[in-house]
Amino acid sequence: MNENFELLRIHAERFRTNFEALAKIGGTPNDGVRRPALSEAHLEARQWFLERIMEAGLEAKVDGAGNHSAVLHCSRLDAPTLLLGSHLDSVPNGGRFDGALGVLAAFEVLQVVKEAGLSLNMNLEAIDFTDEEGFYVGLLGSLALTGKLKREQLHNPRADRNSFEAALNRAGLKEQEILLAARDQNTIAGYLELHIEQGRRLVDLNRNIGIVTGIVGIRSYKVKFLGRADHAGTTPMTGRLDAAQGASAFTLAARELVLKEFPDCVVNVGNMDFEPGVFNIVPEVVTVALEFRTDNMLKLNELEVALLTQASREAERFGLKAEIEQVGSVSPAPMSKNVQEAFSTASKMLGLTYTRLTSGAGHDAQSLAAICPAGMIFVPSMGGFSHSPREFTNWKDCVNGANVLLQAALKLAECVCK
Amino acid sequence: MNENFELLRIHAERFRTNFEALAKIGGTPNDGVRRPALSEAHLEARQWFLERIMEAGLEAKVDGAGNHSAVLHCSRLDAPTLLLGSHLDSVPNGGRFDGALGVLAAFEVLQVVKEAGLSLNMNLEAIDFTDEEGFYVGLLGSLALTGKLKREQLHNPRADRNSFEAALNRAGLKEQEILLAARDQNTIAGYLELHIEQGRRLVDLNRNIGIVTGIVGIRSYKVKFLGRADHAGTTPMTGRLDAAQGASAFTLAARELVLKEFPDCVVNVGNMDFEPGVFNIVPEVVTVALEFRTDNMLKLNELEVALLTQASREAERFGLKAEIEQVGSVSPAPMSKNVQEAFSTASKMLGLTYTRLTSGAGHDAQSLAAICPAGMIFVPSMGGFSHSPREFTNWKDCVNGANVLLQAALKLAECVCK
Repeated sequence: MNENFELLRIHAERFRTNFEALAKIGGTPNDGVRRPALSEAHLEARQWFLERIMEAGLEAKVDGAGNHSAVLHCSRLDAPTLLLGSHLDSVPNGGRFDGALGVLAAFEVLQVVKEAGLSLNMNLEAIDFTDEEGFYVGLLGSLALTGKLKREQLHNPRADRNSFEAALNRAGLKEQEILLAARDQNTIAGYLELHIEQGRRLVDLNRNIGIVTGIVGIRSYKVKFLGRADHAGTTPMTGRLDAAQGASAFTLAARELVLKEFPDCVVNVGNMDFEPGVFNIVPEVVTVALEFRTDNMLKLNELEVALLTQASREAERFGLKAEIEQVGSVSPAPMSKNVQEAFSTASKMLGLTYTRLTSGAGHDAQSLAAICPAGMIFVPSMGGFSHSPREFTNWKDCVNGANVLLQAALKLAECVCK
Repeated sequence: MNENFELLRIHAERFRTNFEALAKIGGTPNDGVRRPALSEAHLEARQWFLERIMEAGLEAKVDGAGNHSAVLHCSRLDAPTLLLGSHLDSVPNGGRFDGALGVLAAFEVLQVVKEAGLSLNMNLEAIDFTDEEGFYVGLLGSLALTGKLKREQLHNPRADRNSFEAALNRAGLKEQEILLAARDQNTIAGYLELHIEQGRRLVDLNRNIGIVTGIVGIRSYKVKFLGRADHAGTTPMTGRLDAAQGASAFTLAARELVLKEFPDCVVNVGNMDFEPGVFNIVPEVVTVALEFRTDNMLKLNELEVALLTQASREAERFGLKAEIEQVGSVSPAPMSKNVQEAFSTASKMLGLTYTRLTSGAGHDAQSLAAICPAGMIFVPSMGGFSHSPREFTNWKDCVNGANVLLQAALKLAECVCK
């Protein structure tokens, strides 16, 4: 690798201008963003991205799964592609950094390489994946690209199916085309992603860069507690089959279980849906939205058994039945050692401190790891806030991360002089 | 009271034909009914009632609060009115007996008195009150009639305000007219209501009739637990402010509290609303729908303090805030001794066994008790099921109850020969 390339840096001012323009799309009064996948705001952000790509003189590309890309071709006709990316969608009440930062850093890398007139041995592609956050189907775009998306996942979206179909129509997407968006894995050289940490470790350790060694596996379930609807005034307390009691006891027990027996895991009850859900009727059905994560497949399986057993136990304790339905499953994904090496070399060269860590959040890199060497870096999240308008990363850290991404990409793409 | 009148009985076959025709309106496949107040099915039931009133040659009347009545005038011009009634609305997934039985029994009483050509000292009115179940505003119709309905109650319906306004439009009701539906209490001689027990006591004691001594007071609250929205994968379990934990702990503690310290009371958490309510975000806000009841004002106040203190304690335990908003309050209502006496005399005369008991459910008789002598009788509920399609009362018990209602009404209306 030529030492001149090591002097190359991303254009910090343009990066920031783009970042702030993008944050306005779906922006909320409290400095957050509301860009759930395929919402009007999300589609507007993607349109904005396409316009920036064309303005930059890069090739714009949209695949059958709605993934939006900027492409910079190298001179070799049969060259594979090094993907760099993240996502432009957000959780319903999210922050401006999650996903957006990684897409814009990738886009910045392509612009800098193009402007420097470098010749690489690989095509570079800055990609924005569809529905990373799973408003409908988690990692939809990256799973589709890797050929791992299943038709049943499209038929069982997290939000209700009618609203998913309306969203697909709005975005001009079709089920069949989503399933045909898979790429030949021989054409993919690797995948790099820059993301905010969404936790406190880098801040606590006072490091500039986190190099991800692996991404947690995630399982999600709908756990239904089934009791009996009775008049809430005339039915004696002892004669009730109250679904709320089972759901509540499970919510408390799930947390206790993880705190005591699964210290490297996390669990969340993110929602409960009550039927009939009125003041004066004992709840007949409560459906609990359960999710849990860890980076070790064995632990993930153990935790699953422990949680689902606990659900049945709490149901039984209150005379209820439990019905359990899996709605999502992502395996833990180790990151490529070679890519980790490229990130650590780049960090050292740039004079940045770094640490290795696991990712507690799911990311598109998880999908890509199944078909190519994939890697991620994190930049520090102040306060560790995430999926919240309070999410914040110092701009200096964003620029550091983008430069590590640039230098690692140059190293991996075997940059040579023209 | 003339002994001949004691031989008068309601027309059991017509009573049943009407009951079954009414049960079809909003009827569900599992033998229940879905007639929430002011829904299409409810309005259809009221139209059906008006048609039956006119067919029977009685006067039909609809007041500003939408209460629907059949009226049988006596020959005295200045005579007060003895009201008999209940309600035609149901909970969303309710049974066919709750409310409907009382309206049709009252209607049957008027028809029998008219057919027998009796002359009474009072007008008789069979009334169907609006929204007894509180889909929007509990006891709306009976509170309006007694002048106790407050404008704020109309502005804070249990369901959202837009759907309440749409429902009022659908029913042709206007806020101002509802508030003007109050009657001069000097024109009301009393109120009698027949209802199913909605509990197991009459079946357990093997009695035909329950004579209600008082109706429980009911308080309802929205208790909001406020935490912080965080990424459910990257935020350590110990660093979370999880609103679901507080809401769940409170739901369990409320039941335990009542079981251990308030044996004559009942409590229900009928709903929880999660924000943002998705799998992968720690819940920021959970709003709990809380209701509790007892027939003693002092106990009701003590229970209120104990429950609301518990809510704050559970919030604090998980680092949350609690916001408490009262959404409903009905005072315990003792029933008239004189009316209870009329019911027991009638039961004895008809050879029926009876017991005195309190009502754990709210009823329109509660509203009426504030302005006139009011009383209720219960007939047995098989299995004690209520607010459920499984609600069931043997037809013989329905007929017994209607005959007690008839005889008590004749006694109270000072029936004399023409």
